[in-house]
Amino acid sequence: MASLRLTLRSLGVSHRCCPRFPLSRITSSTFREFATNLSPPSKAVVYEQQGPPDQVTRVIDLPPVELKANDVCVKMLAAPINPSDINRIEGVYPVRPIVPAIGGHEGVGEVYSVGSGVCNLSVGDWVIPSPPSFGTWQTYIVKEETVWHKIDKDVPMEYAATINVNPLTALRMLEDFVKLKPGDTIIQNGATSIVGQCVIQLARIQGVHSVNIIRDRVGSEEAKGKLKNLGADKVYTESQLEVKNIKSLLGDLPEPVLGFNCVGGSAASLVLKLLRLGGTMVTYGGMSRKPVTVPTSAFIFKDLALRGFWLQKWTNSETAKDCIPMIGHILTLVKNGKLQYEMELVPFEDFSTALDKALGKSGSHPKQVIRF
Amino acid sequence: MASLRLTLRSLGVSHRCCPRFPLSRITSSTFREFATNLSPPSKAVVYEQQGPPDQVTRVIDLPPVELKANDVCVKMLAAPINPSDINRIEGVYPVRPIVPAIGGHEGVGEVYSVGSGVCNLSVGDWVIPSPPSFGTWQTYIVKEETVWHKIDKDVPMEYAATINVNPLTALRMLEDFVKLKPGDTIIQNGATSIVGQCVIQLARIQGVHSVNIIRDRVGSEEAKGKLKNLGADKVYTESQLEVKNIKSLLGDLPEPVLGFNCVGGSAASLVLKLLRLGGTMVTYGGMSRKPVTVPTSAFIFKDLALRGFWLQKWTNSETAKDCIPMIGHILTLVKNGKLQYEMELVPFEDFSTALDKALGKSGSHPKQVIRF
Repeated sequence: MASLRLTLRSLGVSHRCCPRFPLSRITSSTFREFATNLSPPSKAVVYEQQGPPDQVTRVIDLPPVELKANDVCVKMLAAPINPSDINRIEGVYPVRPIVPAIGGHEGVGEVYSVGSGVCNLSVGDWVIPSPPSFGTWQTYIVKEETVWHKIDKDVPMEYAATINVNPLTALRMLEDFVKLKPGDTIIQNGATSIVGQCVIQLARIQGVHSVNIIRDRVGSEEAKGKLKNLGADKVYTESQLEVKNIKSLLGDLPEPVLGFNCVGGSAASLVLKLLRLGGTMVTYGGMSRKPVTVPTSAFIFKDLALRGFWLQKWTNSETAKDCIPMIGHILTLVKNGKLQYEMELVPFEDFSTALDKALGKSGSHPKQVIRF
Repeated sequence: MASLRLTLRSLGVSHRCCPRFPLSRITSSTFREFATNLSPPSKAVVYEQQGPPDQVTRVIDLPPVELKANDVCVKMLAAPINPSDINRIEGVYPVRPIVPAIGGHEGVGEVYSVGSGVCNLSVGDWVIPSPPSFGTWQTYIVKEETVWHKIDKDVPMEYAATINVNPLTALRMLEDFVKLKPGDTIIQNGATSIVGQCVIQLARIQGVHSVNIIRDRVGSEEAKGKLKNLGADKVYTESQLEVKNIKSLLGDLPEPVLGFNCVGGSAASLVLKLLRLGGTMVTYGGMSRKPVTVPTSAFIFKDLALRGFWLQKWTNSETAKDCIPMIGHILTLVKNGKLQYEMELVPFEDFSTALDKALGKSGSHPKQVIRF
């Protein structure tokens, strides 16, 4: 990942306003007029074209940006590499950022400086972009005050950096499709993902049991132990579920009324098989890149409902205002030790290593979170 | 199909009370005591084991049955051969009749005689079993008064015989999943089926457009013409939809908000492709015997919902009482020429030919309706 400072700077690229860098915003006259309120220069992970993330991303230096009255300059502290970030860079996401663009979509930062009209944020505050927005993989970001939501500083920065996408997805999916009661059971595949880990814990807090499906791989026994420590009632590898009377594995648990699928293919079929009559399966990912295949009888005689969840649609809807109390709720759970998930904090200078891990080049790794 | 009169009679089989014949109901003493209120002997299509319908069904003679106080003896006029009847005989239906059983599940008959306690039905009335129940493929049926629903005689008997399954399915599916407004569009595959024909017409009555998918086969142009005459806005064969910009085929029509699938496989995928963002596909059949395959993106980014419909569940639920006014509504539409569908009335003595046609042994045929 070479520095493209000269090339991009010559294009007039600044680190304000993602997804697209406004061209020619920083001119010599701008520098002169607003020299008293300039951000520091920034380092950012950018891509000039969609493609394989390890090939198209570069770390570049960006020049200082002037703060307008309502702008806030945030020194980023941490930002995760989410699968959706990778998909956006690959160009396989339905919302395709206009390139050149800065990677990343959520994270946490500390207010570094504020414009003259900013009232509700002060230097030193911790903030997250809420709803998540483009360009969190950089050291300093200048955006309008309204983009930022202040949070307490009493959680580890890697949790603050990741609270807005995966835990919120888990929370919404548990709320939005089926009215769960204590004693109910949910089932999910891809249970080792952060969403999966959150589902287990958030369900448990409601008194809802979870049946969890994980991949067959080296270390699956260890993974089972970790998920059970989080509160999982049952954890099976996919191959363990290739049995005739699959529901006998549920033991005393009620048949699951709600299922989550982030894998597709046969792992989705296992969720469908285990759901009870009239159950609902919500798809929120497709890690196997295989479609969901459903026998006709599952619809007609088993009366299953299949739905999908996309956080971005939800956070852009009228209900987005509800995000704020939910984020507060989730952060409180983190603070009280009721919600935890595996992450690996990686220094920004090792971004390319973290990206390779996030791309699954070397087996399975915890969520990669960049520390700036 | 040989007559098994002696064999089954020796088992004590009567033609009362489907699905299972009560054994030893008719004894010589019973005959003596209730000789004044006996049904005529009946001819019935029975099967003694599940299997290929053309191999396991037989027409047999059944002895007279005594009418209890609340019983009604109905002389059957007509009954259709529905796909679900075939599935029941094959044993692939989730509700598996206990054998020996009489085939058929809906139909129309004329009250032939009534028990001493029957108040609301009189000899000569036309009645249908509502909800549909087992054993309509016979010339005389004795069942309790509550099984029967009286209808007006002002529609052709083949419509009266078929009103309770397919048109009701079409009506419920248009009502139960999406609140349709005039100007909306629905899409369906298997559009030449009776449900499909009813969907076109019932949608049109509401001012809802229909896009219809039919199989590629000899006569598909003629089939298109027939469906357009019923009010179809668009009719395509599956191969016509294998184009790149499939939605351009919709022309001025709004993208469909609701889809019906009774085929599965690629024909279901076409429905999914044409549905609009946030649309719903309801599966009510699987004629291709292939599953429904759904790309992950259809759930997450297109926010499609996939559901199923099974009339039997619906008619057995608390809402079953709503069937009666709906049947009245549909029969009125038939009487007023607003609802029609293709059928072929076949004399009972040609049952095996009708069954072969219904099994699709010799290409495509209209719905086969037995006239007794």
